[in-house]
Amino acid sequence: MAKGKRPYRPKMTQAGLAPTHAVVAVDEHGDSRDMEIAGEFPLTIKVDDKEVVTLMTLGTYPEALTLGYLRNQRFFEELEEIESVAVDWDREQVSVTTIHGKGIVDWEGKMAKRTVTTGCGQGTVFSCTIDKLYDVRLPDIMLKQSTVYGLLRNLARHNDIYKKAGAVHGCALCQDSEILTFVEDVGRHNAADAISGMMWLDGVGGGDKLFYTTGRLTSEIVMKAAHMGIPAILSRSGITHMGLEIAQDLGVIMIARAKGNHFLVYNGVEQIEFDAKPKSKPPPRASSKTVNVA
Amino acid sequence: MAKGKRPYRPKMTQAGLAPTHAVVAVDEHGDSRDMEIAGEFPLTIKVDDKEVVTLMTLGTYPEALTLGYLRNQRFFEELEEIESVAVDWDREQVSVTTIHGKGIVDWEGKMAKRTVTTGCGQGTVFSCTIDKLYDVRLPDIMLKQSTVYGLLRNLARHNDIYKKAGAVHGCALCQDSEILTFVEDVGRHNAADAISGMMWLDGVGGGDKLFYTTGRLTSEIVMKAAHMGIPAILSRSGITHMGLEIAQDLGVIMIARAKGNHFLVYNGVEQIEFDAKPKSKPPPRASSKTVNVA
Repeated sequence: MAKGKRPYRPKMTQAGLAPTHAVVAVDEHGDSRDMEIAGEFPLTIKVDDKEVVTLMTLGTYPEALTLGYLRNQRFFEELEEIESVAVDWDREQVSVTTIHGKGIVDWEGKMAKRTVTTGCGQGTVFSCTIDKLYDVRLPDIMLKQSTVYGLLRNLARHNDIYKKAGAVHGCALCQDSEILTFVEDVGRHNAADAISGMMWLDGVGGGDKLFYTTGRLTSEIVMKAAHMGIPAILSRSGITHMGLEIAQDLGVIMIARAKGNHFLVYNGVEQIEFDAKPKSKPPPRASSKTVNVA
Repeated sequence: MAKGKRPYRPKMTQAGLAPTHAVVAVDEHGDSRDMEIAGEFPLTIKVDDKEVVTLMTLGTYPEALTLGYLRNQRFFEELEEIESVAVDWDREQVSVTTIHGKGIVDWEGKMAKRTVTTGCGQGTVFSCTIDKLYDVRLPDIMLKQSTVYGLLRNLARHNDIYKKAGAVHGCALCQDSEILTFVEDVGRHNAADAISGMMWLDGVGGGDKLFYTTGRLTSEIVMKAAHMGIPAILSRSGITHMGLEIAQDLGVIMIARAKGNHFLVYNGVEQIEFDAKPKSKPPPRASSKTVNVA
């Protein structure tokens, strides 16, 4: 995803794990079946030796997950503050060292309020992230229906781990109908954070991007997308009321139940160009009352 | 669920919210549609005025959720320690007062390690809960396939909120094929905790029960079921590797992908009585190699 200039990169391990594990299950006929199941591992993030949090993750992109987590929690504003990211699975931890050696600035204040959210995978939002949200200025984009359809077609090729093992959610960073990055994790919040970390590492902005997830659009996912500067989010799944309220407050286009030719625009419909309406619209169904009379 | 003797009950509000909200969305034809979406509200738990955590919840059973959360985190061993549970949605908080007024014993120690898990809804496991898990002794039950099928049939009638609004998971406490309690929430962990709170309030043990969830069987859900003393868990969805390991360590029967006539036993197959194997088994499919030769 890098464009032209070579962005700063901390020193990093490359300690990604294989996503699935082979196990034997017994089906309803009493027959043994070879199955693949998703991994789930604790990873404790330490910044300058101070423990921040333990995430449960699939473990495929631990370095990007760590950076994206720290970025989306607003613990660091600049990647240049971070010197190295070293994952050690034997100790189930990742050691982040900063250039200045001072750890996370105002750590006590940031830890004072914790919110455990609806999120799969990684749910802690610190209050500071909510306060900072309203500094976010998202660009006022137009989104074509044909782009959404192209994107949904392209996404169908991407959920490898889910197809093999289930029990994961996928998130994607997209530009027009193109999928730039697709990450799966046992938690969709981890997948979103890993994407955020990759964007940070590659110096990629969110203003001309779309964010897709197989999971639900709860408050935290909408916040994470906004933190990444992404003005439109799509989900295969549903939404919550608080997710909608935040999307409305921040002006995020919010499309849910996006699958095949179907979708529902919950926010930002005036920014959608309906250039590819399906031709055949099913005739309105007769109500059961009418049927009874006939 | 009460049986005979009247169990102790703290003083409690009854501040359950309506689960869904009416909103208007625009579909792929550009037509407006009236939709219901799930609520999602922050609820900050305070114990003797000390803030413990903020959960994001659907809000239908806030008192039982609060009690079940405190119980499953092992912050309290006895319900009798708790004098009252007062939910105040205007302030987005629930005030728990103890009989002794000392709050949570060894709070600092319990807060020192936090794990943010894969869980939808409420993911913080404190390390003390993991240590205490191995004190759990689950009964060695036998489970009939016919019971599983009866249960799955009965469950089909129970996911009202999901059918209306999506974006929720359901959890059920079951005895044989009977569903004693079914709770939906934006997070399956909240639903599990609410059930735990109801069991605590009604003095109901878990040893002769089954735990069902529409969500995935990750490490935390297996732990919660074990904390409730329930020896068998079923899911409509998949499992993770760590969920399986904990089920193996604790001797929990673990059945996933349970839907219609299908299921997969991942742990405890020797405790399953296959008394209702489906009659028609599809003939083994010819491999593509054979087909090519023919």
